[in-house]
Amino acid sequence: MKKEDTAAIRFQRERDELNNIVLKHAGKNLKRFYSLDSAVYRDGALPAKTKELLGFSTSLVLRCDDCILYHTIRCFEEGVTTEEFEEAVTIGLAVGGSITIPHIRRAMKNWQELLDHGLPGKGK
Amino acid sequence: MKKEDTAAIRFQRERDELNNIVLKHAGKNLKRFYSLDSAVYRDGALPAKTKELLGFSTSLVLRCDDCILYHTIRCFEEGVTTEEFEEAVTIGLAVGGSITIPHIRRAMKNWQELLDHGLPGKGK
Amino acid sequence: MKKEDTAAIRFQRERDELNNIVLKHAGKNLKRFYSLDSAVYRDGALPAKTKELLGFSTSLVLRCDDCILYHTIRCFEEGVTTEEFEEAVTIGLAVGGSITIPHIRRAMKNWQELLDHGLPGKGK
Amino acid sequence: MKKEDTAAIRFQRERDELNNIVLKHAGKNLKRFYSLDSAVYRDGALPAKTKELLGFSTSLVLRCDDCILYHTIRCFEEGVTTEEFEEAVTIGLAVGGSITIPHIRRAMKNWQELLDHGLPGKGK
Amino acid sequence: MKKEDTAAIRFQRERDELNNIVLKHAGKNLKRFYSLDSAVYRDGALPAKTKELLGFSTSLVLRCDDCILYHTIRCFEEGVTTEEFEEAVTIGLAVGGSITIPHIRRAMKNWQELLDHGLPGKGK
Amino acid sequence: MKKEDTAAIRFQRERDELNNIVLKHAGKNLKRFYSLDSAVYRDGALPAKTKELLGFSTSLVLRCDDCILYHTIRCFEEGVTTEEFEEAVTIGLAVGGSITIPHIRRAMKNWQELLDHGLPGKGK
Repeated sequence: MKKEDTAAIRFQRERDELNNIVLKHAGKNLKRFYSLDSAVYRDGALPAKTKELLGFSTSLVLRCDDCILYHTIRCFEEGVTTEEFEEAVTIGLAVGGSITIPHIRRAMKNWQELLDHGLPGKGK
Repeated sequence: MKKEDTAAIRFQRERDELNNIVLKHAGKNLKRFYSLDSAVYRDGALPAKTKELLGFSTSLVLRCDDCILYHTIRCFEEGVTTEEFEEAVTIGLAVGGSITIPHIRRAMKNWQELLDHGLPGKGK
Repeated sequence: MKKEDTAAIRFQRERDELNNIVLKHAGKNLKRFYSLDSAVYRDGALPAKTKELLGFSTSLVLRCDDCILYHTIRCFEEGVTTEEFEEAVTIGLAVGGSITIPHIRRAMKNWQELLDHGLPGKGK
Repeated sequence: MKKEDTAAIRFQRERDELNNIVLKHAGKNLKRFYSLDSAVYRDGALPAKTKELLGFSTSLVLRCDDCILYHTIRCFEEGVTTEEFEEAVTIGLAVGGSITIPHIRRAMKNWQELLDHGLPGKGK
Repeated sequence: MKKEDTAAIRFQRERDELNNIVLKHAGKNLKRFYSLDSAVYRDGALPAKTKELLGFSTSLVLRCDDCILYHTIRCFEEGVTTEEFEEAVTIGLAVGGSITIPHIRRAMKNWQELLDHGLPGKGK
Repeated sequence: MKKEDTAAIRFQRERDELNNIVLKHAGKNLKRFYSLDSAVYRDGALPAKTKELLGFSTSLVLRCDDCILYHTIRCFEEGVTTEEFEEAVTIGLAVGGSITIPHIRRAMKNWQELLDHGLPGKGK
């Protein structure tokens, strides 16, 4: 791990590495879940941007840092503004309570890194 | 309780009744939370419709039937279509797993009642 | 079920009935858990009253109505005042978020019943 | 609802009724999840009996009564004995804590009904 | 990070740093939640010490290490004794089950550090 | 920490170290829970292998990495095959949803390490 890497870069590298191990052992059903999990966020009646906000806020109230980071990156890619992101964070906080605050701290730090450094592999 | 009442009508009646008891005993901080909890869903950078979808999907993955019903009614009021509602349900299911299915069954039944009978106190 | 029974009375009757079925089938380890579960709330370095408040607030954030009702009754028995109860409720709400509100509504209704009718089997 | 119906019969009737509403509105992804959710419990490297015990114990620690009842019925169908069921219950209790006890009470009552009345539609 | 820092010191440093980022982007409602979250633990009908025990035990059963550490430090500040802390831990364990044990291990290690090194910035 | 240690070795070392601190401060009830927690996984009506699969899958849906790793090691010790492990993983994924995926990635990586390096202290 290079010291200067952002959380987003570190996450994507580790995620790819570990998904390779999962898929090496995965049976048919596990693979079907992975495929389904991509499909539900695609543009449909609701645009991908709204769907990523749903992915983000559900991950926040369930308090999974990796899931939160994944959807933080995707929200940024879909053009969510800082004001919109902050409102989604605040709904998650109201619904899920103060127990979500440590995750919100890390999410906001990662959002700041995306603002400062842009998307992994794309720059600002 | 009248037999023919919809789930939405029964819920709103009981909710009002019980909130009166809560507010009778509520101190300053509890009242502040109630007030904050209304404020976060108002139109802002994100429209109220999107915020209610966030309220709905977070309630679904946290599996609280009353919260799900509340936001189901609010989504309907904000003009969410059946196709949009179904996609929010499916994201909740993918994120939260099969453990959400009994809640999805009840949510879809309540959505159908809203389609059939309209909003409580407003008709179709 | 008699219509006029309080939630506390109905709960205790059903709880006794079902615990009899559990204990009929219970092995040694399940019985040990039941015994341990009573022991942890007894007076110790912390008084039983504080321990019941801990039992109540943990049940509230985990959102189990039966557990909440059990500890609501026990808090009342241990002389918790309405002001103290309301503060424990508010901490649960702040920690656990709005998803706890439906449970708070029911808890406050049950507290009101205890204030109005006293403990089950003891009267006011 | 007939008064004398077992919990298993009432559950299966309501489940079928509500699943019809869900499937009426379901898009492709929601249907794929339903299909996947059946597939994962079929005989494979692990026998269906073990898989139903996994379904039961995960539902117990996540505290979903309908899911618990569904897998209780399926465990009974797969020939799980009362001793085996009790041990799965006790593991769920140890892992998930006393917050699972109200669900265990209901699960054991339903198990007793299955012992007394047999499977819905099949008799003893 | 200096190697010899306690978990409490590292946590408070990181918490301050990240809260600065949160507050830079925070809207009115997010700030109101932060303010409310401080208010609920102040002396009232229940003393701050009891309230911190409630904050600790709810954080333990919801299994949030940062929240647990925050309230562990606050319990220590409020004069909670090791015997009292251990009883609050045990109630959390009974309510929340063995899934809390890894968090209990870390909480006890942090408590031991507080016993050995005193509060961050204050010494023993 | 030696760089080349597997996750299993690091976990067992840290677990032993921290359990010593817990047990130093543990009262009677906390010790009873630890003892009960070992007892429920022993051979009984269900074999230890099945019980460890139950411990694994409940830990997975409750999303506790340390608990998952503990039962991953125990499953490997009890002779669970990779195919059986993958099916237990997939049931956890279906029940608990995509929020479990980051834990599944880490579980599969640890399983791969066990396949490659054998049990801690025993070799391949």
